[in-house]
Amino acid sequence: MRCAILGGAGFLGRHVGRSMAAEGVEVWSVDRALSLPGSAPWLAGEVQADCFDLASWWDAVGGADTIVHLASSTVPATASEDPVQDVQTNLVGTLRLLQALRQQRARPRLLFASSGGAVYGRPQSVPLREDHPTMPMGAYGATKLAIEHHLRIEETQNGLPCRILRLSNPYGEWQQPHGVQGVIAVFAHRALHGQPIDVWGDGSVVRDFVYAADVGRAFMAAACHEGAARIFNIGGGAGHSVNDIILSLERLLGRSVERRVFPARPFDPPVNVLDIQRAREELHWAPQMTFEEGVAMSVQWLRTVS
Amino acid sequence: MRCAILGGAGFLGRHVGRSMAAEGVEVWSVDRALSLPGSAPWLAGEVQADCFDLASWWDAVGGADTIVHLASSTVPATASEDPVQDVQTNLVGTLRLLQALRQQRARPRLLFASSGGAVYGRPQSVPLREDHPTMPMGAYGATKLAIEHHLRIEETQNGLPCRILRLSNPYGEWQQPHGVQGVIAVFAHRALHGQPIDVWGDGSVVRDFVYAADVGRAFMAAACHEGAARIFNIGGGAGHSVNDIILSLERLLGRSVERRVFPARPFDPPVNVLDIQRAREELHWAPQMTFEEGVAMSVQWLRTVS
Repeated sequence: MRCAILGGAGFLGRHVGRSMAAEGVEVWSVDRALSLPGSAPWLAGEVQADCFDLASWWDAVGGADTIVHLASSTVPATASEDPVQDVQTNLVGTLRLLQALRQQRARPRLLFASSGGAVYGRPQSVPLREDHPTMPMGAYGATKLAIEHHLRIEETQNGLPCRILRLSNPYGEWQQPHGVQGVIAVFAHRALHGQPIDVWGDGSVVRDFVYAADVGRAFMAAACHEGAARIFNIGGGAGHSVNDIILSLERLLGRSVERRVFPARPFDPPVNVLDIQRAREELHWAPQMTFEEGVAMSVQWLRTVS
Repeated sequence: MRCAILGGAGFLGRHVGRSMAAEGVEVWSVDRALSLPGSAPWLAGEVQADCFDLASWWDAVGGADTIVHLASSTVPATASEDPVQDVQTNLVGTLRLLQALRQQRARPRLLFASSGGAVYGRPQSVPLREDHPTMPMGAYGATKLAIEHHLRIEETQNGLPCRILRLSNPYGEWQQPHGVQGVIAVFAHRALHGQPIDVWGDGSVVRDFVYAADVGRAFMAAACHEGAARIFNIGGGAGHSVNDIILSLERLLGRSVERRVFPARPFDPPVNVLDIQRAREELHWAPQMTFEEGVAMSVQWLRTVS
C-alpha cells in the first residue's frame, strides 16, 4: 500500500506516518513544509506542495492507494474570526481535490480527519455516538461537517471510497506548545517553565484526549476497513478533567503548579466524551496508551525542545 | 416592517413579496434582475444588485427589519456538476452577507429558504420532522445545510436573529416551465402543448408540493415568530404521486396526456413528505390551497404566457 499524507509534516501527520510505516505501508508526506532533515526516517519521500492541488504532487508520489487528509489551514478560533477564509481554503480546497481525483483512473481511499469535538455541538447525551445530531457551534465544525457530507456524496455519486475519523483531542510528542490548540502541550510547557496555567471555572470541565500514536493506528485500521460504516469516533475511551491534567503534571514534575483562575465560560459544555464502541468493533481498534503515560510522553518530548 | 427580499424578482420572490405586502409590510426586491414594468405593483421599490453585496443595496432600500434570503445561483443538477461554484457563490456569498451585517448597527431578522427535499437525504421515516437526521445526497443540499449551520452559529455568536424555512417543492403561477426544477410547471406546460410527459418508473413516487403563495404566508409568519424554534418545515401537508399530477392535469384539460416511461431511478426515494406540525403550532400557519386548485392556478397562468 502506498499512502500520501496531506499535512504529513505536522504533529498528527508524523504520528500517522510512523504508525502506517510500521505496518509496512510506503508513506509519503505532502505538505507545505518539509520535515527537518532526518527527523522522519519512516517516510519513503516528501513532496512540498499545496495538498489540495493534486497535479502538484500525485505523480511525484507515484500515485497512492490511500490518501490521509489531515490538511487544515485553520483552528476553531481562526475559523470563527474569518469563516469565509476557512470555507475557501478547507472546503473549497477539498472539493478541488475531489474534482481532480475524478480525472484519475485510480480510486484511492480517502481518510479524512474530522473533529469529534466540533461537529456534534453541545452534547445531548454522553458519551457521543456517531449518530448523535450534528449541530456544530462554530465555523470550524461547520466546515468539517460540510466536508464530511461532500465525501459521502462523492463516494455515492463517483465511487471514491472514504472513511471519516472524528477525532477527539489528540496529544503527544511533536505537538507544539505555543498554539491555540492542544491544551495538554500548552499546560505541560507552562508547567515545565514555572509559568501559571489558565483555568476557566473550577477545572471540572471534562474532555476526551487521545494519544496521537493511537490516532495513527486508527488511520491504519481505517485504511483496511471493509465494512459499511463510514464515520468513526476516535477518542481516548474516557474523559479527563482540566484538574486531572494538572494533577498528572504535578505528579510528573514532583511539584505543584500555579493556577490562574478565570470565570467559567458559559459556552463550554461540562462534559464532551466520544463513544468509541464502533471503532472497537469495526476497526478492531482501541487506544493503547494510558492517560498518565501519554502525558509523560508529551512532557518528555517537550523537555527535549525547550 | 420593511423587508428586503433577496431574489425578489424570481418565482418564489414574487409570491413572498405579494404575501408580505398584503400584511402591510413595505417590501423591496433585491435581485440581479428587475421585474417587468408594472408586473409587481406590491413592491415599494426594487434594487438591481448582487444580493450578497450588502453595501450595494442596504442604503438604497433604507435598511431592513427583515431580510428574506431566496437568492441561489444553482439548482440540484448544476450544484452536483460544479460543487466548487455552488459553494463559492451560495455559501461564501451568504457568509459575506453575514460579515457585512455585523458592521451594521441594525440586527435585521434573516429568513432563509432552505430545502426540505435536499437537506434530510433519504428518509428514515415519513413524514420528515425537523429533527430527522440531515444527510444530504447532493452538493445542493450540503450547501443549504452548511448555510443553515452558519446562520444558527451567527445568531449564537453575533446576535443576528434567523429563521430557516425548509421548503418542499413550491409550485404556482410565475414558475417557469423550461427549468430543471418545478415538475408541476414542466408537466403542465408539456400537457398544454400536447407533448409527452417523461415518467421514471411507474409514477408512484410521492413528493410534497406546496403552493407558492402558501410559502409566502409562511415567510410572513416566520418574520413575526417569537418562539425558540429556528427551523420549520413548510410543505403541502400531504404527498402526491407523479400519477396524481398527471391525473389532475388530465381532469383540468379534459383529455388524456401522453406519457413517455423510463426505467425507475434507484436513487429516487419512493416517498418524501414533510411533517409540518411545528409550523402549524409555532407559526400558526397551514397551507390553504388544495392541490387541485393550485395545479389549476399553475395551468391558468401558463395559458397566459404560452
